[in-house]
Amino acid sequence: MEKIRLGIIGLGQRGYGLLKDNIVKLQEYYNVTALCDVYEDRIEQASKTVVENGMEKPFGTTDYNELLMRDDVDAVLISCAWEYHVPVACAAMKAGKAVALEVGGAYSVEDCFLLVNTWEETKVPFMFMENCCYDKYELLATSMARKGVFGEIVHCSGSYSHDLREEVTRGKENRHYRLRNYLNRNCENYPTHELGPIAKLLDINRGNRMVSLVSVASKSCGMEAYVEKHKDTMNPELIGVDFKQGDIVHTIITCAGGETILLKLDTSLPRYYSRDFTVRGTEGFYEQAPNIVFLEKDVDHTIFESTTSVVKHLNNGKEYEEKYLPDIWKNITEEQIKSGHGGMDSIEFIEFAKAYLAGEEMPIDVYDAASWMVISVLSEKSIAQGGAPMDIPDFTGGKWTMRERRDVVPM
Amino acid sequence: MEKIRLGIIGLGQRGYGLLKDNIVKLQEYYNVTALCDVYEDRIEQASKTVVENGMEKPFGTTDYNELLMRDDVDAVLISCAWEYHVPVACAAMKAGKAVALEVGGAYSVEDCFLLVNTWEETKVPFMFMENCCYDKYELLATSMARKGVFGEIVHCSGSYSHDLREEVTRGKENRHYRLRNYLNRNCENYPTHELGPIAKLLDINRGNRMVSLVSVASKSCGMEAYVEKHKDTMNPELIGVDFKQGDIVHTIITCAGGETILLKLDTSLPRYYSRDFTVRGTEGFYEQAPNIVFLEKDVDHTIFESTTSVVKHLNNGKEYEEKYLPDIWKNITEEQIKSGHGGMDSIEFIEFAKAYLAGEEMPIDVYDAASWMVISVLSEKSIAQGGAPMDIPDFTGGKWTMRERRDVVPM
Repeated sequence: MEKIRLGIIGLGQRGYGLLKDNIVKLQEYYNVTALCDVYEDRIEQASKTVVENGMEKPFGTTDYNELLMRDDVDAVLISCAWEYHVPVACAAMKAGKAVALEVGGAYSVEDCFLLVNTWEETKVPFMFMENCCYDKYELLATSMARKGVFGEIVHCSGSYSHDLREEVTRGKENRHYRLRNYLNRNCENYPTHELGPIAKLLDINRGNRMVSLVSVASKSCGMEAYVEKHKDTMNPELIGVDFKQGDIVHTIITCAGGETILLKLDTSLPRYYSRDFTVRGTEGFYEQAPNIVFLEKDVDHTIFESTTSVVKHLNNGKEYEEKYLPDIWKNITEEQIKSGHGGMDSIEFIEFAKAYLAGEEMPIDVYDAASWMVISVLSEKSIAQGGAPMDIPDFTGGKWTMRERRDVVPM
Repeated sequence: MEKIRLGIIGLGQRGYGLLKDNIVKLQEYYNVTALCDVYEDRIEQASKTVVENGMEKPFGTTDYNELLMRDDVDAVLISCAWEYHVPVACAAMKAGKAVALEVGGAYSVEDCFLLVNTWEETKVPFMFMENCCYDKYELLATSMARKGVFGEIVHCSGSYSHDLREEVTRGKENRHYRLRNYLNRNCENYPTHELGPIAKLLDINRGNRMVSLVSVASKSCGMEAYVEKHKDTMNPELIGVDFKQGDIVHTIITCAGGETILLKLDTSLPRYYSRDFTVRGTEGFYEQAPNIVFLEKDVDHTIFESTTSVVKHLNNGKEYEEKYLPDIWKNITEEQIKSGHGGMDSIEFIEFAKAYLAGEEMPIDVYDAASWMVISVLSEKSIAQGGAPMDIPDFTGGKWTMRERRDVVPM
């Protein structure tokens, strides 16, 4: 079988993690031929990992243009800092390389149009690598929705609820881009983990579209309190510094179909991890945090204490797996589950490879990328204007009315 | 001990329920002397209940002005339809009667100012009867917040998540005001069950205030699907009728202190009951639905599956009761718990009576009433304008900067 000769641009936590935990284990599909990062030590580490896993020593460079000029690269995984996602992806497309673009929010509406326009000019295979579109619970609920179990869908919500206080405040040591974003910006800076699966479920850009949003941020206290509490071991540059990023940001999106989407960014206060993927319909709902499926048959007007209901239905999502869980999750291997984020990364990289090698349409395309990434920009504007509604551009130029559903895996 | 000679205006589900389940059991504080409703049969039923419980037969009338003119009425409980809350309350205050005003949203900003202005002219005892301010879990979390357990509070959320499809669609038979509201309006029509306890916790109108809001509604499908599904037994007037009320309405309020409040109205889709009272701070949080207290000590960066976290912490709020639950809940009797809504109604009516009889400041006052009720009006405007931000009036006229904290019970 043909393999994808892959270049990786960006070898930090995410890029190196994907290489080490997934790509070297998927040599059936991938041969890593080139590596790029602005830091030499990261290239060296990644190169060693590639060689140790039986591939030839890849080309290494600190200049992504050098990587993009090479004939031995078919596709690039772009996992650099958020600020470089669009320029690197556009350069790669212009160089005729297929693009697997890691997730993150955008910084301008124009950048999102640039991404779309560059793809429309080049038409190279392009996939937005939103791994959460491939996670088990999102796919279970999507499959149930597709089979009509929840009736007409009227609302979805989700969050990026992830205590990042340590990661962000160690940003200097770790050379991580989140720190500068949290210091300077105030927005829904990372919308796609929750929005991606919701947008796929609601057929966004394929029969539906996101029309407008409002976004509101709480004050910013979490990072500063964390810095103060850990000041003995803290990077001294952060002590007493004002973080602009609000602790909790809510964004409400309205869709052409009348559905609403609630997003929450919740990353600088103590909490447990959750994406809170929730699907609400006229016949029932799915709630990810307690893994609850609740249908008409479960309605009980005698219970007013919510804890009683949570206890009663907790984790009953399991009971629906046999009937509704997509095959890709039914057939997942132990090795895949261990290979990063519980298996979704592995599935995602296999799906990218399969679509690329078969010359098929990518499951998450440039219109998805642009419309999901632009939420950060519009959220920033809305927050700055006291929650004012912002129009969400139609990146398909009206083609959403004729484009057909494309689920990320068969349902 | 002196008793309050009470008139009740509005003897529907709520008014009659309060009479039967609470007021007749609180004869230490209350003597029911007058009853009013627009429906004679309701007056008759209530009068019978009063007499059966050993009180003298009360005066009955269909004209609330007649009730308000009587010398044997010290105070009135106003539990009529939402549309009449403000005019009846103002008439009562002008007649020199103390007012216990049941909850509901308002229909105009002017009405809210009228309520405040009438109170400022008359200064009669006035309490807004938001029973959820007295519920166990709201008070547990508020007490913990007061003791600094959650650090600096940055965000609160709550919902009125109550499947009202049956109640609303039976509105004609039950002569209930919700039906006409759901048919004609689209707004956060019932904000105070969740907002009340949050506003008290955040010291709204007492050192803090709500400054602005945005509100967005999903499409309206739930009621229509319910009517269609139950058309054999449905009021034929509702078949095929368009309900204007969106199924899920989210409202985000920004406070002067930088805190945000997220409210959700969620009443026309299948679900379990929940008010989702949630308090987020720099040191931890409280979440009502699973009754979870989560503090810095609970942070665990190895768990990415939210169900695991919910299972791990589920109902651990119980562990904090001994140390933090206010005495009023520690000392609650079995009889109180059985007397409606798990005990909070009983506590509330005792607190109203005690404050009235002692001539003390009411725990939930006219400024609270106006600023909580106005959310419905502003939500309606915001939704109609695509989620545009709305200023929330300062009903205290600047006095919020000098008014001191008043918790509903000692913490």
